[in-house]
Amino acid sequence: MKKTIKLILSSFLICLAAWYFLGLAGGGVADPAPGVLAPSQSGDPYAFLFEVLAIVLIIASVGHYVAARLKQSPVLGEIAMGIIVGTLLYQLGMPTMTIIRHYEQVHQVSSAALKANVCFSDAIHTVLKEAGLPEKDTQQLEQVLLREDVAQSYLTVNALQLFSSLGIVLLIFLVGLECNVKDMLAVGWWALGVALIGMVGIFLLSYLALSIFFLKDGNPLIPVFLAAALTATSISITARVFQDLKWMRKREAKVVLGAAVMDDVLGLILLAVVTGVAIRGAVDLSIVAEIFLKAAIFLAGVLLLGAILVPRLVTLFATLSRGNVRVIFPFALLMLLAWLADRLGLATIIGAFAAGLIIEEDYFPGGGRGRTVESIIAPIQSLFAPIFFVLIGLRVDITALADAQVLLMSLVLVGIIVICKLISALPVKPGDNRLVVAAGMLPRGEVSLIFASLGKSLGLLNDNLFAVIIIVMLLTTCITPPLLKWAIEREELSESVRV
Amino acid sequence: MKKTIKLILSSFLICLAAWYFLGLAGGGVADPAPGVLAPSQSGDPYAFLFEVLAIVLIIASVGHYVAARLKQSPVLGEIAMGIIVGTLLYQLGMPTMTIIRHYEQVHQVSSAALKANVCFSDAIHTVLKEAGLPEKDTQQLEQVLLREDVAQSYLTVNALQLFSSLGIVLLIFLVGLECNVKDMLAVGWWALGVALIGMVGIFLLSYLALSIFFLKDGNPLIPVFLAAALTATSISITARVFQDLKWMRKREAKVVLGAAVMDDVLGLILLAVVTGVAIRGAVDLSIVAEIFLKAAIFLAGVLLLGAILVPRLVTLFATLSRGNVRVIFPFALLMLLAWLADRLGLATIIGAFAAGLIIEEDYFPGGGRGRTVESIIAPIQSLFAPIFFVLIGLRVDITALADAQVLLMSLVLVGIIVICKLISALPVKPGDNRLVVAAGMLPRGEVSLIFASLGKSLGLLNDNLFAVIIIVMLLTTCITPPLLKWAIEREELSESVRV
Repeated sequence: MKKTIKLILSSFLICLAAWYFLGLAGGGVADPAPGVLAPSQSGDPYAFLFEVLAIVLIIASVGHYVAARLKQSPVLGEIAMGIIVGTLLYQLGMPTMTIIRHYEQVHQVSSAALKANVCFSDAIHTVLKEAGLPEKDTQQLEQVLLREDVAQSYLTVNALQLFSSLGIVLLIFLVGLECNVKDMLAVGWWALGVALIGMVGIFLLSYLALSIFFLKDGNPLIPVFLAAALTATSISITARVFQDLKWMRKREAKVVLGAAVMDDVLGLILLAVVTGVAIRGAVDLSIVAEIFLKAAIFLAGVLLLGAILVPRLVTLFATLSRGNVRVIFPFALLMLLAWLADRLGLATIIGAFAAGLIIEEDYFPGGGRGRTVESIIAPIQSLFAPIFFVLIGLRVDITALADAQVLLMSLVLVGIIVICKLISALPVKPGDNRLVVAAGMLPRGEVSLIFASLGKSLGLLNDNLFAVIIIVMLLTTCITPPLLKWAIEREELSESVRV
Repeated sequence: MKKTIKLILSSFLICLAAWYFLGLAGGGVADPAPGVLAPSQSGDPYAFLFEVLAIVLIIASVGHYVAARLKQSPVLGEIAMGIIVGTLLYQLGMPTMTIIRHYEQVHQVSSAALKANVCFSDAIHTVLKEAGLPEKDTQQLEQVLLREDVAQSYLTVNALQLFSSLGIVLLIFLVGLECNVKDMLAVGWWALGVALIGMVGIFLLSYLALSIFFLKDGNPLIPVFLAAALTATSISITARVFQDLKWMRKREAKVVLGAAVMDDVLGLILLAVVTGVAIRGAVDLSIVAEIFLKAAIFLAGVLLLGAILVPRLVTLFATLSRGNVRVIFPFALLMLLAWLADRLGLATIIGAFAAGLIIEEDYFPGGGRGRTVESIIAPIQSLFAPIFFVLIGLRVDITALADAQVLLMSLVLVGIIVICKLISALPVKPGDNRLVVAAGMLPRGEVSLIFASLGKSLGLLNDNLFAVIIIVMLLTTCITPPLLKWAIEREELSESVRV
């Protein structure tokens, strides 16, 4: 035990030292404007990003190690390291961290400065006045935005987010690669059941709890919006845990994946309905039909055409660039489908999953011999996916936990989610492990965040309710890895006993 | 021959269609400002970059194919595709392309808007008035900068450049990986000879030619500056050709690599001297000594400590993150050393080369068994390095070739460079192929570009002289791959005859 504490302390110090370095880099490098000879003159304006990349990877590795020593999931280690490092550096006023925390406001400032054609300092004041942040945060953010190197800090944050987006689609692509279309169709109905029961249950129970206990007065749309925000399941965390524990090929994993994809689509439809009601006061059925249709066409189109077109395209690419067809083709297809899904109003990860589903090893010249697509893409993923999870941690503001009512509301909602997910896992095929399915469906994620920021900009969610969504997301995200690990190890133990 | 023309035409059409798509994506996606439900609302603000990545990779693949059919080097195909596609799309007024071409001005606008705290539109007018671009280009750039989606286009270009930086350090890292410290020390003196003769020759002859024939009147510093700008050798192109032809392990490759690294350091020293004279009217020996010292300390420190520290660090990382030590450790080391080199005023690629040099396969657990570091990093490089070469092509403005005097001056300078490089290759070890060494040392690159933009901002180089440097860079870059390929194949033929 002593050794573990020593270990955590020392790894923590390493991280802090690493990020202090980052702080120096973020603040010290002059803007590479031409003029007199300066060190940065000789070089690459993106060099400082290399350091940020390296440091985030080191933080992630330390997180892995600590998690492994504490017998926790690696992904939890990455998130936890992010939370610890992020909280400290935010308190120290580091520019990059401040922008990560208040990215939305910074983005609004930059849009305002470009569009309304006002001065930068005016844009800062206008946006910050309306943002409604606590006084201390507003001051810190304003100071950062008025620094000379704000463009570089903003570029750093954008680059980190870009790498994190890249990491998460690569992760989900690898998940898709381990499944195939037949498998997914085989679990389709079970997955739909799990998704629907979970969504309806969470929506109704959360609505009731919120409107009866917490939000009796005020706009009746608010509890509806908050309840809707919590319905969609985030697949990223669960997929990572399945990947870490090598459970991706099990039936339970496929049910969870299928249900999470459906959840995402249903969540977006719910978002359209609720937003429509909030804006127009009525449900706009045409928008609902449009999203539904787009999702159906995208998935059906990708799956049907995929089986016909992909083998031909692989052959074409193999003539274009013989040596690298196993890297270039899967990566290009992944990028195109992720982008296409986003353009159609779905999530990028749905496109990434579809890309993984329709690529089969057999299509490539040389068949099963030599290195597989998975063995080539997996190392790339292992560089970028940790950035996604560390960034989740960096974004978490744990001071929000200090408000008793916010905390209570969040805990009640987490309780409701856990209960609903347990119930939703009841109808899975006999023999499948219900606990694994239930635990896998717990995390709230990207779609909830979209709801939250939309609700804030519509004026439906105040800061406290916004914090509730974030805390629920955080808690479900943090309990899933240990819970899922425990459920899986329990299953493996009972299997080995049976054998 | 007919088939080849058909092929080039059709691949060209594919590229154009692909980039038209890109144009749509760059222009059509609304800024993801919160508000009403829009497609981009549901998703990832970086999704459109995925498409750009995919398209650049497809263009690169088509370039590979065409080059292979014409028996040219793949890297030349990538650059040529970039030139063709870039010229067309610039003529069509595509925002992203316009920003790529005039990145320096756009960067100045954004700095001005942030720093002097003037309005964005004022910053545009001030910068464009001083930029001295042709009327047509100024108008096109102004239109692009006033578009609503300019932030997104700027982000796209930044992301492309970031990926291209990442690609080139990965490429040079792999080059370093194929060499080791002992090899490099063995060729050290030959390499120094090649570097010094080439540099001194090019500097003196170019200076004489320019001051006698082309720039008789005016500031006597101008021919000095122009001559100095052409002294440093760019390693990127040569390294790619060696890699494509699997010549990396030959002695000639090592001499060229060593000489190019020395060239880079000597080039930066020359830059400091000439800039110092231009600004202060005198040589500042302390700056010269500083650069020299920094380069020496960096290389010696990395090499000496590398042999002691790296094996220990690998062991440490292997305990931190067992499964991925062969990806995470080399990548993190590469990023840190590239950044460190940049901070010290050297080029990122010197750090990348050093990182490759000091990593040995034996350090990793499991020794030679299983997959090597090279086999894991190479696919990542094959995704990002083509972006560097396509971007070189996109940046080329071939309309500059239309001015007869500019073209003549450029051709004379290219002639001088070819002659000097042939002479500089004379003293290599008997038995080494002199033509390979000479051809490998031809390309002018990043350091010349730094000279060019510095000279412009110091008021020493006008638009025409700036264009001369770009054209020389372009010509040497484009003649190297076929020349080097020819020299290598000639050597291999004579070897096989001898055997």
